[in-house]
Amino acid sequence: MKLIDGTTIAEKVHEETRASVAEITKSGLCPGLAVVLVGNDPASRTYVRKKAEQCAKLGFHSLRLELPETTSQQELLAHVAQLNADPKIHGILVQSPPPPHIDEAKIVHAIAPEKDVDGFHPVNVAKLALEDPSGFVPCTPLGCRRLLLEYGIPTSGARVVVLGRSMIVGKPLALLLMSKGPGGDAIVTVAHSRTRNLGEITREADIIFSAIGRPYFLREEHVREGAVVVDVGINRVEDPSHKRGYRLVGDVDFETVAPKCSLITPVPGGVGPMTIAMLLSNTLKACRQIHGLPG
Amino acid sequence: MKLIDGTTIAEKVHEETRASVAEITKSGLCPGLAVVLVGNDPASRTYVRKKAEQCAKLGFHSLRLELPETTSQQELLAHVAQLNADPKIHGILVQSPPPPHIDEAKIVHAIAPEKDVDGFHPVNVAKLALEDPSGFVPCTPLGCRRLLLEYGIPTSGARVVVLGRSMIVGKPLALLLMSKGPGGDAIVTVAHSRTRNLGEITREADIIFSAIGRPYFLREEHVREGAVVVDVGINRVEDPSHKRGYRLVGDVDFETVAPKCSLITPVPGGVGPMTIAMLLSNTLKACRQIHGLPG
Repeated sequence: MKLIDGTTIAEKVHEETRASVAEITKSGLCPGLAVVLVGNDPASRTYVRKKAEQCAKLGFHSLRLELPETTSQQELLAHVAQLNADPKIHGILVQSPPPPHIDEAKIVHAIAPEKDVDGFHPVNVAKLALEDPSGFVPCTPLGCRRLLLEYGIPTSGARVVVLGRSMIVGKPLALLLMSKGPGGDAIVTVAHSRTRNLGEITREADIIFSAIGRPYFLREEHVREGAVVVDVGINRVEDPSHKRGYRLVGDVDFETVAPKCSLITPVPGGVGPMTIAMLLSNTLKACRQIHGLPG
Repeated sequence: MKLIDGTTIAEKVHEETRASVAEITKSGLCPGLAVVLVGNDPASRTYVRKKAEQCAKLGFHSLRLELPETTSQQELLAHVAQLNADPKIHGILVQSPPPPHIDEAKIVHAIAPEKDVDGFHPVNVAKLALEDPSGFVPCTPLGCRRLLLEYGIPTSGARVVVLGRSMIVGKPLALLLMSKGPGGDAIVTVAHSRTRNLGEITREADIIFSAIGRPYFLREEHVREGAVVVDVGINRVEDPSHKRGYRLVGDVDFETVAPKCSLITPVPGGVGPMTIAMLLSNTLKACRQIHGLPG
């Protein structure tokens, strides 16, 4: 068993991004990311801060827009429109989840597709399905595929099981892995909460992705010897020994599953760090595309 | 073994559409379908004629626009724009394949999404992935699901294998069957030309859809006893005993596969008739949506 080291791979992606930013800065360009936070959720606040810090490290222009919980849908749409028009901004992200009075889908629709670095706008969803490389793929699935590529895990003709069918992870990951080309051409099965006999399905898999959101969901009996397991789950479990009173675990019962795997991601330090790395990579891509640069 | 009788089910769908058209006609509405044909391909010409005939039978307003092979991209786009603006037209379809000098994707993009009854416009592709019921699902996948529903074939938790990953059939069918609700909630595997050990995958399936486009592709050894097989392929094989010199067969080696199945579609008379039935059903839906009618 070998660990997939997401922290190291994410650092490699950041390094590539940084080098590329340094290069385009010479021609007076600088990728800009705007992150919009509505309300005071502490976890969201932490995510937003981390994104801004990483932007600073890589030489990005970064804008953090923190709006009160009482911000109306109309006000938020007006902010998005302003960011769409702002030539210094190439990527726009509205931190999820917004307060309940905000219609998140409408906000996502309002973001200019060419600045939708989260890849949630319908234009980008369609581009993923249609295998149009100009689109933005959601950051977590993109990070998952990058891990496979970095570890040289063959996907062409491989049997892949994706647990979960959300539009944030499961479906885009399935579309990505079944599309043509490197890191693709897999035989993908999407399983979900309606699955009976989970083990029958997952034991056939060369590679399993779990994005179900339940701690200890994938257990020893579900995994065949030598499989690759990528754990996308981030779940809180109570733990009085931690100062916060909880710790974060994935979907995988790591202790029993890991010994059977050829490769497995830990939580934390697996998929998690890749998400922000792909976000900044997507923002750089947006900047290049908006300014007509190759690559 | 029992045959899935697509001709009878298609007739039932047509009958529902006809009844619904008769109902909305009372309020002065009439669904209108425009079919655009560029060039002289005899098969395309036959398809277009059949669509127009069926429109006439169901009380649709139908427009057939036949353009010379030499029609330019710009001219075709101008025709599409005119149809987009035509209040009598609710569905627009440009018969595939157009001549090689036409960029088919650009034409599809130009069709107003609310009139894209083929379901190929990116807006509708995204709505399918996002499970937005206001979108249009491509007619062949929609017809396939309808066959399952009509025959009471359970899909929730069922193992479904889709052979083929095109945007016309394979991918939309997979998205449809994995989405939530009746005729959905399946555990879907998409296999394709890069699949090794096809039988290992297809023998696990409760339901197999083949949309590969190769005659006699799915054989006895690929199918488990009691499976449901839906053959989406339409392939020409030489046959001197036919006056045209060929006959149409599906992807399935019917003679050896059928005895193992609980249910199987014949070719012709299986999925084929459903496609046009769903096209007219989609056009009726477009008419209702454009005029703000429920359902």
